Amino acid sequence: MADVTTVAVPTETRPGERRVALVPESVGRLTALGVDVRVQAGAGVAANALDQAYRDAGASVVDGDVMAGADVVLSVNSLEADAVRALDRGTIVVSFLAPVQSLDKVKAAQEAGVTWLSMELVPRISRAQSMDALSSQALVAGYRCALVAAERLPKFFPMLMTAAGTVKPAKVVVLGAGVAGLQAIATAKRLGAVVQAYDVRAAAADEIRSMGAKFIDLDLDSLEGAGGYAREMTEERSQRQRDLLTPYIAAADAVITTAAVPGRRAPLLLTRQMVETMGPGSVVIDLAAESGGNVEGSVAGEEVMVGQASVWGALNVPSQMPVAASRLYAANLVAISQLFLKESVVTMDFEDEILDGACVTHDGEVRFAPAREAMEGGS
Amino acid sequence: MADVTTVAVPTETRPGERRVALVPESVGRLTALGVDVRVQAGAGVAANALDQAYRDAGASVVDGDVMAGADVVLSVNSLEADAVRALDRGTIVVSFLAPVQSLDKVKAAQEAGVTWLSMELVPRISRAQSMDALSSQALVAGYRCALVAAERLPKFFPMLMTAAGTVKPAKVVVLGAGVAGLQAIATAKRLGAVVQAYDVRAAAADEIRSMGAKFIDLDLDSLEGAGGYAREMTEERSQRQRDLLTPYIAAADAVITTAAVPGRRAPLLLTRQMVETMGPGSVVIDLAAESGGNVEGSVAGEEVMVGQASVWGALNVPSQMPVAASRLYAANLVAISQLFLKESVVTMDFEDEILDGACVTHDGEVRFAPAREAMEGGS
Repeated sequence: MADVTTVAVPTETRPGERRVALVPESVGRLTALGVDVRVQAGAGVAANALDQAYRDAGASVVDGDVMAGADVVLSVNSLEADAVRALDRGTIVVSFLAPVQSLDKVKAAQEAGVTWLSMELVPRISRAQSMDALSSQALVAGYRCALVAAERLPKFFPMLMTAAGTVKPAKVVVLGAGVAGLQAIATAKRLGAVVQAYDVRAAAADEIRSMGAKFIDLDLDSLEGAGGYAREMTEERSQRQRDLLTPYIAAADAVITTAAVPGRRAPLLLTRQMVETMGPGSVVIDLAAESGGNVEGSVAGEEVMVGQASVWGALNVPSQMPVAASRLYAANLVAISQLFLKESVVTMDFEDEILDGACVTHDGEVRFAPAREAMEGGS
Repeated sequence: MADVTTVAVPTETRPGERRVALVPESVGRLTALGVDVRVQAGAGVAANALDQAYRDAGASVVDGDVMAGADVVLSVNSLEADAVRALDRGTIVVSFLAPVQSLDKVKAAQEAGVTWLSMELVPRISRAQSMDALSSQALVAGYRCALVAAERLPKFFPMLMTAAGTVKPAKVVVLGAGVAGLQAIATAKRLGAVVQAYDVRAAAADEIRSMGAKFIDLDLDSLEGAGGYAREMTEERSQRQRDLLTPYIAAADAVITTAAVPGRRAPLLLTRQMVETMGPGSVVIDLAAESGGNVEGSVAGEEVMVGQASVWGALNVPSQMPVAASRLYAANLVAISQLFLKESVVTMDFEDEILDGACVTHDGEVRFAPAREAMEGGS
């Protein structure tokens, strides 16, 4: 029997996770590369991907430890350190991995000689768009959080002309106009709301307007970070931003905040006082609740009252739409896998700036400098 | 002190009811008729209508029994029989009242000499459109049930072109194209779903198409009931309808059923077998769950699994969007009140076919024939 390259898809272990790293629809794109695909039994169930569908697509379904002896492991969330230590030397793991926040896992991968590609670290270059899992999952989160706002608001989003009179459209304010924010704008607009949006990045104004929303121009000097992400700003400017935003918040039926800075605490955009200016029945969606929150008082995974507003704290929102999120994520994984799965064998070419940029550990080394520095600083 | 005509708005007593019969925005339209408006303290809280807002609008807010001595009582749900018996002779009650299902209340109103106008019985004539509370509440229910479907589906409603590939739009089937069904279609279309819809009434085909949905033409002979409502059909035809609908249901991501026949058991449109043809993660919304259900196995107020589909049984859906529902309902009540509140006094003119049609009891008589017949049959 030839030693065929094997790609393994384990069941996710993060509590509440419903996504799966590979969906049956994507199996064929990997087997076409000459590799075997092994999926842990039940791995896709929560994303409506049944074992039989994987089999029908050409994968094998394995009870128990699917990762033993695998050449490549595809996962949504990062593997636990113990699971990493159990991998063969040279195994490639592709998953989300916040390396600086997960130094124990990075260390386990280093010691085990595992190559770990972090989907957050894929460079935001044109050629890597199809691998941009932050964007694909943000698309899901942005759509869903607008739906959640609409479902919770005791009013209509759209304007309606009825025999009993005209219903005014809801006023929605979206803060942060990255992928999630723009999709939230698009979805709220689809539903007929009047949408206003704000982002610290000057370039966002045109994108906001192109979605049909009104750009909230606060006349702060714009600042834009490296890599297309918003940078943190000084406390003084943040305060001025909050002061200027307050009247927009007070007038809104729903506010959706989507400002996240990868690997850092989310900026505080709405203080408790600002939320308290909102009317009864108003809704706030804090998509950044897991990383410290854009909204003071928000709790990830819970709905809490702040003043008269209901504040919905996001917790792994992509997992709440597991079919859509898994399909997009699987497409991202297939795209990056094509970079190192060539002619049925694994070739990890760090001349490729995508693989170079995404790689956290390889062959006993920690290649991602911030993680290396954090480990050295901590030792 | 002059004997001013008084309109009272009590707190709703139905469990879970969040609507209120009159909102602050509508108070002025009644006081302009020269009447006093009295609202029970806290009556509007669940619909975000605070006591102070009523006061600001010119109503008085009353602790305790607001109905004592009132000339007119406005309510969403029918009053309990005890409350009716406590009213002064000649008091006018305007509310929803399913008279044939509520003979104890009808009897109480008859004995107390109370005039009860039932909002369900307002004739569906052009002049009464602004009083059509069945339609206004169905509008809310239709909108909301499409949102609920979207929020529960693990996929996107819209088609999306992303760097990781194209996301196909969700397939939504709407059964029943009355006000609620048409609004469900409109909302699902707004969100970008591909919508197909069916109604037994031939006239619905054009309305369905005008909303941008595909009409499911089953080639059954059409039958249309009196008063613009769908009539019940023979079991044989129902069976054929279900057989022909099954392939559409099997292919749908979400099915929304909205077929209700006022005062009767809702027709069974989806058998358990039909729901079992649907794929994993699919969603069924049964808006008729309270009146027996369009979907076999649905439970009002609960979400149950049937096969691989999640079946959401509606329970007082308008109350789940209390601000919007109360505003429209209040506008309906003001419009009908204008028919009998003239020059500050109550004038119940049964020459007016709207008042005649809506009136269940008056001056010791049961005027609504089906209720009278049911009472005579039962005595």
